[in-house]
Amino acid sequence: MKTIEFKDGRVVLIDQTLLPLELKYIECDSAECIAEAVENLRIRGAPAIGVAAAFGLALTALQNSRESRERILSELEKSSERLKKTRPTAVNLFWALDRVMEKARNSNNVVEAVVKESLRIYREDIDTNEKIGEYGAALIEDGDVILTHCNAGALATAGFGTALGVIRAAQQKGRKIKVFADETRPLLQGARLTAFELVQEGIPVTVITDSTAAFVMKNYGVTKIIVGADRIAANGDAANKIGTYGVAVLAKEHKIPFYVAAPLSTIDLGISSGEKIPIEFRNKKEIEFFNEKRTAASGAEILNPAFDVTPHKYITGIITEKGVLGAPFEKSIKRAFKS
Amino acid sequence: MKTIEFKDGRVVLIDQTLLPLELKYIECDSAECIAEAVENLRIRGAPAIGVAAAFGLALTALQNSRESRERILSELEKSSERLKKTRPTAVNLFWALDRVMEKARNSNNVVEAVVKESLRIYREDIDTNEKIGEYGAALIEDGDVILTHCNAGALATAGFGTALGVIRAAQQKGRKIKVFADETRPLLQGARLTAFELVQEGIPVTVITDSTAAFVMKNYGVTKIIVGADRIAANGDAANKIGTYGVAVLAKEHKIPFYVAAPLSTIDLGISSGEKIPIEFRNKKEIEFFNEKRTAASGAEILNPAFDVTPHKYITGIITEKGVLGAPFEKSIKRAFKS
Repeated sequence: MKTIEFKDGRVVLIDQTLLPLELKYIECDSAECIAEAVENLRIRGAPAIGVAAAFGLALTALQNSRESRERILSELEKSSERLKKTRPTAVNLFWALDRVMEKARNSNNVVEAVVKESLRIYREDIDTNEKIGEYGAALIEDGDVILTHCNAGALATAGFGTALGVIRAAQQKGRKIKVFADETRPLLQGARLTAFELVQEGIPVTVITDSTAAFVMKNYGVTKIIVGADRIAANGDAANKIGTYGVAVLAKEHKIPFYVAAPLSTIDLGISSGEKIPIEFRNKKEIEFFNEKRTAASGAEILNPAFDVTPHKYITGIITEKGVLGAPFEKSIKRAFKS
Repeated sequence: MKTIEFKDGRVVLIDQTLLPLELKYIECDSAECIAEAVENLRIRGAPAIGVAAAFGLALTALQNSRESRERILSELEKSSERLKKTRPTAVNLFWALDRVMEKARNSNNVVEAVVKESLRIYREDIDTNEKIGEYGAALIEDGDVILTHCNAGALATAGFGTALGVIRAAQQKGRKIKVFADETRPLLQGARLTAFELVQEGIPVTVITDSTAAFVMKNYGVTKIIVGADRIAANGDAANKIGTYGVAVLAKEHKIPFYVAAPLSTIDLGISSGEKIPIEFRNKKEIEFFNEKRTAASGAEILNPAFDVTPHKYITGIITEKGVLGAPFEKSIKRAFKS
């Protein structure tokens, strides 16, 4: 099972909206197809949508390979603009697009440069996740009970996963661990995707409603919390799936260490604090209806933010491919980028 | 719209599992029918199931009205045992059954005594809620933004409601208020029932996922939190719908007053602290499936507690029909029972 891959000039990705009921792959041959998949959460997770966006540019380059250099670059610009409009919060999207576009602009063989750079981003993401897993696993003790929110697994990345990568790596080192997975309303990425991945790995996982998190922290011996991130500001404030901030506050109250696992590509040095991270608000239908059945009373307003920001004071450590960063985060983040 | 009433020797109640899509009434002529309705949450909310249980005994009394006094009492005992097994947490159920049974045992005309006492409990509940509304409304200021969890409204009581009764009474006094309603997974009593009641009253209500509560406390100016309760220990610890404890912790972190609105019949003086309150665990299918569609990956465990306990240290005040009780709760509760 591969979340996303580049194969025979096409991008093949799992339609995650159908999981866990159906494991169906989509084949994209255009950036527009990728953009639609990102918008509709067929592929999601900050690192995965970074990779998908890079592949989107590779498809545009291939489609226009017989055109002039100028024409290819102009088509790439258009695709990049289109892909940037899909989702506002995860910075990996912008990071990946900017990285590929820079290579394109500075190369004589644009098509080759774009395809190569997108594949490099893909491979780097898997490498990075394995390193995150390595550093994170060192924090995990035998008998740990880990709570996670949303899905920061192989499905959220090119492979292996960030938060779930840490859990996976710890399991591979022989640590006996149990996981509580918040179901993660409204789109249930925890119940559908995180539980699916962990069951496949043979790691014991218990799904709970999001509002049961406090109950299990108090009564079921949760020892660590690990989540992913969609964008981290230069001061360590971390945007992640709506509900993460609440989990962090609960962790503090229960004196449970709270870790964010994310690659450096998720850190946005251009943003000094979490207050400046743009938060995506999604369609109210995600809350108003389930499976086409109305679940909220007609006439009520709905507020559906997709993310929230956890201030750095609630974060014990940020697990990156350069090690576990601790407070003061501004310094440790700077150091990680320089190393 | 009446949540429950006794009419022509039958109990008529709204099947709340069908709201907000359908307003359908069920007619019960036996305690077994009431027990089934309570078990399956056709009627729910601590005060409402107290009233329903009392009416269940009234139905048993009427069905056996031609029998001997001993026979009637023995049938009532059986019904009472059956009804006590429906749900373990809400103490109003046990309180109402014990109260009716005591009247029955001490009366020569058992049938009349049981019917009268059940109707008295019904009328008292509405009176009590109106008094709770009165005391609670005095705490509400113009412009308040109130967050509530689950449904502690007219639908959770014989009428008017506890937490929503406070909101209703404040609105009737001309206070301009806005409400955030947690959708309340897994059974969505907030989205389905609280939003439904508030829309009907013309009170602005915004439905959010449970995990959005922290986000709106931080960013949308929530000024007060009011919830109901299913059982309150003698020290003020309060059991209520799963998720309430988390909301209370978040309220403390955001310095927002956290109120519990409940009649004295919800206070169990026989239980010294919340740790001794029995918590109901419900069927895992409530989380595993929605509308018959699987939402959690197969093979994952599910933990589905219906309630949690909020320690009294998180509670600003308990709004009762005898006034707003404050810390130290052990003393203020004792005083309320004596007054």
